Amino acid sequence: MLDPDRHLEIGSLLFEGIDQIDLTGPFEVLSRIPNATYRIYARDTAPVRDLRGLRLTADAALAEAPPLDVLHVPGGYGQEALMEDAVILDWVRRQAAGALCVFSVCTGALICGAAGLLKGRRATTHWNSHHLLHHFGAIPVDARVVEDGALVTAAGVTAGIDGALTVAARLRGDEAAQLIQLTMAYAPEPPFDAGTPDRAPPAVLERARAAAADITARRTETARRIQGRLDL
Amino acid sequence: MLDPDRHLEIGSLLFEGIDQIDLTGPFEVLSRIPNATYRIYARDTAPVRDLRGLRLTADAALAEAPPLDVLHVPGGYGQEALMEDAVILDWVRRQAAGALCVFSVCTGALICGAAGLLKGRRATTHWNSHHLLHHFGAIPVDARVVEDGALVTAAGVTAGIDGALTVAARLRGDEAAQLIQLTMAYAPEPPFDAGTPDRAPPAVLERARAAAADITARRTETARRIQGRLDL
Repeated sequence: MLDPDRHLEIGSLLFEGIDQIDLTGPFEVLSRIPNATYRIYARDTAPVRDLRGLRLTADAALAEAPPLDVLHVPGGYGQEALMEDAVILDWVRRQAAGALCVFSVCTGALICGAAGLLKGRRATTHWNSHHLLHHFGAIPVDARVVEDGALVTAAGVTAGIDGALTVAARLRGDEAAQLIQLTMAYAPEPPFDAGTPDRAPPAVLERARAAAADITARRTETARRIQGRLDL
Repeated sequence: MLDPDRHLEIGSLLFEGIDQIDLTGPFEVLSRIPNATYRIYARDTAPVRDLRGLRLTADAALAEAPPLDVLHVPGGYGQEALMEDAVILDWVRRQAAGALCVFSVCTGALICGAAGLLKGRRATTHWNSHHLLHHFGAIPVDARVVEDGALVTAAGVTAGIDGALTVAARLRGDEAAQLIQLTMAYAPEPPFDAGTPDRAPPAVLERARAAAADITARRTETARRIQGRLDL
């Protein structure tokens, strides 16, 4: 927990094809952290679409961001287009270098990996991309939220809510995080126990894998290509 | 479960001052329901701000909505401004009349109440507004998701994710809902057990109540005023 009088700059990266709840889940938490400025940054402030069509707009362009204390990197199918994008990767790398906390959600971890931030670090990502972590030099951990120094990685999609509460507690203490949790009534009761590959019915897992087969193949190819360039 | 060949029209209501995750939590589920068109409707298609500043844009204006099979009504502090808004309430009432399912999240239940949709129905809402349900003729139920015929009400904020999965299962069966749950890796692990008034530390509950005291007072006054006009 930090000096509560220290003002924090918190920023999320927004991009076309994001999985919106990778951003909006943590938004609910990050936007309530006391004594902090929270803004969403994107290449520019034109509206973008999430992978299912939700229209979201950034608060400011990347270049307008101050040095961030917390850098939040969401994922989604659109992550793939950023994996070799020098502007995005340079921004992520530069912001991460000075941040107290780099917080990835879902395949946002792959963006961090492409920026070289996962080398030798314990990390997690969406179950469907977990096998790709080693290409970026990460030590893959099968957990919902993984902390390794300044790096906090959350697993797939909705794990970002759990990860953001963990980040809030690191920054402002348990009670501040609990206050946010109570406000957002986060006492989940999923109607089914099917949220992980080992708990979902096998037929459901097979369908989920099949639906993501194309993007997984592309991500694998990209991860291998990037691995060849990273100094691991 | 319906005929899987029956195409569904699903719509969410967006408004200024919404609590964004009341919409974006269910979005993650509703946008993945098979054989359905899912769109977000608002007074117009100008960007709005959620209560913490997130910029969201509707897909279409209210008047452009077809008859909806599923009407999703989110909440948030901005709900208060809609409670006596004839355009919104007429739209909600008209859409609800023909819908297979009316699904409220958080204080979206109060909007439904103001539209007369809660009379004699079992319902829930955010813990901080739960005591207001009776003003709308509802039978208050202390549960995360409450089903009463075509009406599905979810409790506060993040309960919308649980509620939306329940709605998905009603419409397309358990396996379709489980596939969505697995895709969004919804196997929550909150780092604290503080998501309900009875589980949060007393000091945290007191702070949460104090932070919402103003809006709660306004909501109470409005609910009483509306109660006098509803034919209960």
